[in-house]
Amino acid sequence: MPGHSYETGRLNLPFVGIATFGKAPYVQDWDAIDADVAILGAPFDSGCQYRPGARFGPRAVREASTLFSFGHAGAYDHEDDATYLGEDVRIADLGDADIIHTKTEESHAGIEYGVKKILEAGALPVVIGGDHSVNIPCINAFAQDCARNGPLHLVQIDAHLDFVDTRKGVTIGHGNPMRRAIEKDYVCGMTQLGIRNVSSTAREGYEDARARGSDILSVRQVRKLGADAVLERIPEGARYYVTIDIDAFCPSIAPGTGTPSHGGFLYYDVLELLQGLSKRGDVAGIDLVEVAPAYDPTESTQILAAQLLLNFIGFIFHNRR
Amino acid sequence: MPGHSYETGRLNLPFVGIATFGKAPYVQDWDAIDADVAILGAPFDSGCQYRPGARFGPRAVREASTLFSFGHAGAYDHEDDATYLGEDVRIADLGDADIIHTKTEESHAGIEYGVKKILEAGALPVVIGGDHSVNIPCINAFAQDCARNGPLHLVQIDAHLDFVDTRKGVTIGHGNPMRRAIEKDYVCGMTQLGIRNVSSTAREGYEDARARGSDILSVRQVRKLGADAVLERIPEGARYYVTIDIDAFCPSIAPGTGTPSHGGFLYYDVLELLQGLSKRGDVAGIDLVEVAPAYDPTESTQILAAQLLLNFIGFIFHNRR
Amino acid sequence: MPGHSYETGRLNLPFVGIATFGKAPYVQDWDAIDADVAILGAPFDSGCQYRPGARFGPRAVREASTLFSFGHAGAYDHEDDATYLGEDVRIADLGDADIIHTKTEESHAGIEYGVKKILEAGALPVVIGGDHSVNIPCINAFAQDCARNGPLHLVQIDAHLDFVDTRKGVTIGHGNPMRRAIEKDYVCGMTQLGIRNVSSTAREGYEDARARGSDILSVRQVRKLGADAVLERIPEGARYYVTIDIDAFCPSIAPGTGTPSHGGFLYYDVLELLQGLSKRGDVAGIDLVEVAPAYDPTESTQILAAQLLLNFIGFIFHNRR
Amino acid sequence: MPGHSYETGRLNLPFVGIATFGKAPYVQDWDAIDADVAILGAPFDSGCQYRPGARFGPRAVREASTLFSFGHAGAYDHEDDATYLGEDVRIADLGDADIIHTKTEESHAGIEYGVKKILEAGALPVVIGGDHSVNIPCINAFAQDCARNGPLHLVQIDAHLDFVDTRKGVTIGHGNPMRRAIEKDYVCGMTQLGIRNVSSTAREGYEDARARGSDILSVRQVRKLGADAVLERIPEGARYYVTIDIDAFCPSIAPGTGTPSHGGFLYYDVLELLQGLSKRGDVAGIDLVEVAPAYDPTESTQILAAQLLLNFIGFIFHNRR
Amino acid sequence: MPGHSYETGRLNLPFVGIATFGKAPYVQDWDAIDADVAILGAPFDSGCQYRPGARFGPRAVREASTLFSFGHAGAYDHEDDATYLGEDVRIADLGDADIIHTKTEESHAGIEYGVKKILEAGALPVVIGGDHSVNIPCINAFAQDCARNGPLHLVQIDAHLDFVDTRKGVTIGHGNPMRRAIEKDYVCGMTQLGIRNVSSTAREGYEDARARGSDILSVRQVRKLGADAVLERIPEGARYYVTIDIDAFCPSIAPGTGTPSHGGFLYYDVLELLQGLSKRGDVAGIDLVEVAPAYDPTESTQILAAQLLLNFIGFIFHNRR
Amino acid sequence: MPGHSYETGRLNLPFVGIATFGKAPYVQDWDAIDADVAILGAPFDSGCQYRPGARFGPRAVREASTLFSFGHAGAYDHEDDATYLGEDVRIADLGDADIIHTKTEESHAGIEYGVKKILEAGALPVVIGGDHSVNIPCINAFAQDCARNGPLHLVQIDAHLDFVDTRKGVTIGHGNPMRRAIEKDYVCGMTQLGIRNVSSTAREGYEDARARGSDILSVRQVRKLGADAVLERIPEGARYYVTIDIDAFCPSIAPGTGTPSHGGFLYYDVLELLQGLSKRGDVAGIDLVEVAPAYDPTESTQILAAQLLLNFIGFIFHNRR
Repeated sequence: MPGHSYETGRLNLPFVGIATFGKAPYVQDWDAIDADVAILGAPFDSGCQYRPGARFGPRAVREASTLFSFGHAGAYDHEDDATYLGEDVRIADLGDADIIHTKTEESHAGIEYGVKKILEAGALPVVIGGDHSVNIPCINAFAQDCARNGPLHLVQIDAHLDFVDTRKGVTIGHGNPMRRAIEKDYVCGMTQLGIRNVSSTAREGYEDARARGSDILSVRQVRKLGADAVLERIPEGARYYVTIDIDAFCPSIAPGTGTPSHGGFLYYDVLELLQGLSKRGDVAGIDLVEVAPAYDPTESTQILAAQLLLNFIGFIFHNRR
Repeated sequence: MPGHSYETGRLNLPFVGIATFGKAPYVQDWDAIDADVAILGAPFDSGCQYRPGARFGPRAVREASTLFSFGHAGAYDHEDDATYLGEDVRIADLGDADIIHTKTEESHAGIEYGVKKILEAGALPVVIGGDHSVNIPCINAFAQDCARNGPLHLVQIDAHLDFVDTRKGVTIGHGNPMRRAIEKDYVCGMTQLGIRNVSSTAREGYEDARARGSDILSVRQVRKLGADAVLERIPEGARYYVTIDIDAFCPSIAPGTGTPSHGGFLYYDVLELLQGLSKRGDVAGIDLVEVAPAYDPTESTQILAAQLLLNFIGFIFHNRR
Repeated sequence: MPGHSYETGRLNLPFVGIATFGKAPYVQDWDAIDADVAILGAPFDSGCQYRPGARFGPRAVREASTLFSFGHAGAYDHEDDATYLGEDVRIADLGDADIIHTKTEESHAGIEYGVKKILEAGALPVVIGGDHSVNIPCINAFAQDCARNGPLHLVQIDAHLDFVDTRKGVTIGHGNPMRRAIEKDYVCGMTQLGIRNVSSTAREGYEDARARGSDILSVRQVRKLGADAVLERIPEGARYYVTIDIDAFCPSIAPGTGTPSHGGFLYYDVLELLQGLSKRGDVAGIDLVEVAPAYDPTESTQILAAQLLLNFIGFIFHNRR
Repeated sequence: MPGHSYETGRLNLPFVGIATFGKAPYVQDWDAIDADVAILGAPFDSGCQYRPGARFGPRAVREASTLFSFGHAGAYDHEDDATYLGEDVRIADLGDADIIHTKTEESHAGIEYGVKKILEAGALPVVIGGDHSVNIPCINAFAQDCARNGPLHLVQIDAHLDFVDTRKGVTIGHGNPMRRAIEKDYVCGMTQLGIRNVSSTAREGYEDARARGSDILSVRQVRKLGADAVLERIPEGARYYVTIDIDAFCPSIAPGTGTPSHGGFLYYDVLELLQGLSKRGDVAGIDLVEVAPAYDPTESTQILAAQLLLNFIGFIFHNRR
Repeated sequence: MPGHSYETGRLNLPFVGIATFGKAPYVQDWDAIDADVAILGAPFDSGCQYRPGARFGPRAVREASTLFSFGHAGAYDHEDDATYLGEDVRIADLGDADIIHTKTEESHAGIEYGVKKILEAGALPVVIGGDHSVNIPCINAFAQDCARNGPLHLVQIDAHLDFVDTRKGVTIGHGNPMRRAIEKDYVCGMTQLGIRNVSSTAREGYEDARARGSDILSVRQVRKLGADAVLERIPEGARYYVTIDIDAFCPSIAPGTGTPSHGGFLYYDVLELLQGLSKRGDVAGIDLVEVAPAYDPTESTQILAAQLLLNFIGFIFHNRR
Repeated sequence: MPGHSYETGRLNLPFVGIATFGKAPYVQDWDAIDADVAILGAPFDSGCQYRPGARFGPRAVREASTLFSFGHAGAYDHEDDATYLGEDVRIADLGDADIIHTKTEESHAGIEYGVKKILEAGALPVVIGGDHSVNIPCINAFAQDCARNGPLHLVQIDAHLDFVDTRKGVTIGHGNPMRRAIEKDYVCGMTQLGIRNVSSTAREGYEDARARGSDILSVRQVRKLGADAVLERIPEGARYYVTIDIDAFCPSIAPGTGTPSHGGFLYYDVLELLQGLSKRGDVAGIDLVEVAPAYDPTESTQILAAQLLLNFIGFIFHNRR
């Protein structure tokens, strides 16, 4: 259906057509993934502690992503004088992991299964949550990949430390993922950016994180240092796994989330970190979580998520060349 | 603080004050419940299969209930020429059952604990969900009570049959409660009203329900029969447990719910059934579930729930005298 | 600017142009009203007891009314095979009465002033509230008119009786207007339709109203009787003042109001009463109150109000001929 | 990916996965349509005269349709004791017609092209608008099909007559489709149901429609007659094209539309007409238009559209057997 | 009606009265414009490529403007120690240009007609869109004016370059206006500020714009330079036409627009540019476009537009003296 | 019910339980206040001049505050390496002052009564409005307290000067509080921060304020000076009364308010001023006003208010030690 030029093919305006991520092909056969980037939805939100609804994050981000997919020849950025996401970057949308209501472990297993399939196919996994607990199966899925390709340095963009070990028996909720990740022998370091305010993580969690080598910076600290100095603190040439909790951002641009926290990042704060990171080493995996569209009738939150992901993917493949 | 007349006490307009149910006293010590009716919130929504958010049902229904609590001398109804909910009906608001994210069984246990405490105190339990899975611990909590006081006949007001036995290992989600209830030896019968349209329950579930003696009527069938004839089909003089899924109602008045279904009941369809039921036997327990306020910016859904509950409680105690 | 035919003049689609009521001329000089019908906004809402916002009722109803004003040659109704609101019915929009925040009496005085000006000009006053307390100055304004033209029979369409005499010193809030009206010697009777449920009016208010000759009917009673039988109970050939509280309607079609009450009227329930009334006697004044648009993002409430008023005005002048 | 039973395949909850209509396969190659029913989005809304936004109708209806697609073995309806939409009814989702902003004729041409492709493939076209002007290219597309298979009787469910010939040069806006349709020699009759209130069609349009043999019934007239008597007025055994404007329904259940009109149909009013029609003759084409989701934050409107379409398709194929 | 002091005249609170722009007089006779500034609504949005609804921009901006119109003696700004918009600045609100649905050229012609009338009357035209395509007829209207008074330098505040020549035959959509403008011989230069991110304009468009002498700066570039340095790049003493697309702003303060783009301007970024521009030369025309209120329930977007326009008009006439 | 550790007590997730401020104990007997901080709701909004709804501010802020109350051992802030609000800071929630509709003076009297009770009990009063007029009774209530403990220096965080003396007889609306405060002999100075744009206060008001010694700074002026320099201008070691109008903030994070004004403070702008103030002297009273939740479906506004108040209270008691 899609043509190669506006005049002979379809105009394909943003609002037209099935909402896959970036209007990329929908690949239902996970044994036949042939792409550079594979999008997987992880619509699980029973790990959240305040406002639910991140289960509709994948659909919302997909729909918003169509706003940025109407160029036929890649996305030209006049500030960088560069064209991103040309036809050589092949994106596939796998749809969503299967989710089982009332069952957290089984739902997480479905997500882990999908990420493993992507890694086996040699594509970059980009997982759209769901709440932040979906990061747990994402990291779990990397065990074999890391055995082959080396460990991961985690870069977390988030308002909350998410470093609770266990509380009332809960170990795999959305307050636990960073604590679970640091336990992996294939996670060799952690940078936690944007952390601020009161959070579900108590003093002990911060001490634990620091003791395990995590580098924790608040929004104000990131801004005071500047993007370059922050990037300097992240090991160069490493394999990065980037987990972006949309609540890292100021509620002014990302109100559609479960546990908003004022004083967050604005757009370029994070974009410049991601662009720098894409130049500093290899991005091996991405998740973006906690978009809960029911709380944002303006749709700004999902537009932010889509805009950020498309730019970040563009940077990664531009710098890989 | 509250006075007994407007002139010497507070005017206490609906929007003024802490939002307990009907502005009833907030009783935090569950070993000291001294009331005729006890309200318990059950803010669990990980059992739902489409739009979550019923965890905010209890707070929303409480806030809406304040609209109907500004009379100092009970609620006069000119159609019945009766005053309901005078000072002799003592309502207590217990707050909410404790909920553990990621854990369904543990959350259900917290609800069961609360309902047991109410039954032990001899009060009428009125549970506000949460999704319909919270009915499961509510019914569980009645084991001992029924051993003493006799079995329950369940009256379900709902769009969906909720009669799935097990699917992908799920047995305690919001599609399962009626199937779980019928398994109890202290549940002696079931009337299911408002059931319509495509639902998560397959043909087998319907056959199973009918085989176990359930009386299933759609909205159109209820209307065609009329309230009196429907009531005739319910055993007289029994102990009723009434479970009201707000999606029994037409989305026109109850859009704030997880799995809306068009063609539902209007207000008096249900009110007249509840009023009739309060005259026909003893109402031993009530739950009202699936109010998800994020989907109804008009607040009509929670106002409906509050209006219905306050009237139903009024009818029950009016007819008990 | 406006032309007389689509081809030579403007198409004037509903969304085009300044939002006066029905796109009628805006008349700012109240000493020069030359019209059959005069619209006056009364944006006062400090008399309300729950959700405020009816101060934006006039603007919302005006904007909604433009949806129904795109015919150039009156409004053809195929059921009646009649064309209403042809060019012979001259409507003027006077803008709003002046309102003084923190001051109820002074604000009411501004409304009374405007209605008097309309009556002096011989036009039919149609007042858009504002909360129901604005009915008080509307009725006050009729003193001289009634001295000349005879007393009024009040027809109230409402969920609430609004018959509180005084409470905590409040006598002119939105729970008091009908009590204030009945005190006038130029109000000779009252029909109160749609009254239901718990309300701010206690038993004493109902008894008082009945003692003073009011005819009170609930929604169910009106439906059981049918429009014709209800109309029969209203004195024939009288001068009617019609006060329509939008909460008389079911929240399904009128959620944008301060104190919603389930079980209300649907559209034709009321339309047929108003059409019948327009044939039964002379309508001397109208107010429509309690449209609070902030609570209805669908805009259905103000569309209902506008549709109802335009039809009612159409009926009145059609039957006057 | 999809399995044939819940235990071995995916649970596939409604909120999981890419939102095609009913989670049907997405068929991008319009030269390879192999299905009984083909869904085509027609996201054009520049023909509308008040609130735009129906361009997002196709996506909204698709997303809502996933709520009704979680049964693996068809949809059991206990009132009919029938299972609809079993695996023998093959639905394909073709995505959307290409739309060209600022250009009405070119956009209509894209829609006509898609419908022709469906007809050539022998599938039932189900077009989701878009505003009602998209009916024009739908009907145009039938020229060849009707030459082969006989003419169409149009059944319109709508609040508005849409029978304007031309106004200010506009002939293909959303007020014109029925006038355009009746001009076709392969349109042999027309039944217009739900027509009410003031509308863009003036008296002349009604007279024109009646003169051309149209049968026009209002909501009240339809209800008074009853579904069976209405169906009797429609030629038996004909080929029907059904065009459903969502504003035929009461704004209480369908507020998300461009030109709402109070006093509309409720769910079963229309469902029973459609079910009856599916038994009375052959349904050759369907469009459902004017769902504008931005005006309905509750999502009830698109849920109604999806529920109606899925049931109607179910009835058609159930009765074809 | 309006008095000259609060004590003898009306208090005229913001929410009171017909919503013309700034509560300025409504002038319907476009042959009798006697004002310094004339407001014209251009409610056309069929040129937009994603979310429509800017047709309600003029009404929304007018209503929001009333918030800033409650001073009787101009608007005092304590930072500048100046009073703007005193009685010597005469604003007239002309209502809206006539719009023809389905027809882009005819609708644009209506806008061009209105702007010409304003220019003929010697007033400053301030056009409120509508989508950005309405800039095309605005610029067209200046042909004669520029023949008399000299050419225009365009200053565009926007997220998008809008420099598409033609695509699929579209030349007058909201992606084309700057390309159309630069073709005019009376447009002598162009400054494009705020341009960022992926856009409908491809690399070729940027190259074309630069080749034609356009000065393109992103938000980050503007901020790095500072307002003064940016102003230095704009020819001094020229006649400026300023076109403001509300999506130039960050979605945090302007979510109500069709194609939001994160990373935009904040309030003072733009206000200081406008204030500087008003001192640097003569502002001959203004349009503000793309306010789509349905996407912003907080109303912040239209409040921003109104606040910006009123301040800008104030600056212009303050500096003209 | 609440336990002292997660394992033996309740998990008590944010969304669980009755919404008192910070889930603090609800103290209904105002003669038995035993706390360090006492929260009083002042749900009065008839003093406002544009969008009402601040009467629901207290409930909204309470509900939002529960998001920040899920730590059992105080709130750890990693930037300060400090734990705030440990168990030694005893907060009590008194519910709301009684409000009388239609009556401003009587409603203000109810607020004054509550604040006096708090001061008599030796607790810090924290009043949640309601519109800014509720500051008037708050300041009135301090007469006796100041006679004992010395005068107050007022620190106002606001967009508007609120310094109108009288207008159309209005002296106690939301435009008057600062003028009323400066008249008190126990108010010894005033710092007004964030003041910007057109406002209800005319030039005379500014001159009056400055003449009475007020220090007025705009948002841009505060930012240019920096928090430390601003704090230097405030008398050291004084007793501060802090009044925070939520419209001081940018509408991007606080759209839910009656009279929004673009260009406002962001979160850390104000937080750092409050933290500095808590170190510079004694905070004797606080009010936070103008949160109108109906205008912010994202709930960001009330989350901001709650987050700000909890942090500010934390700072005060941390620095008191």
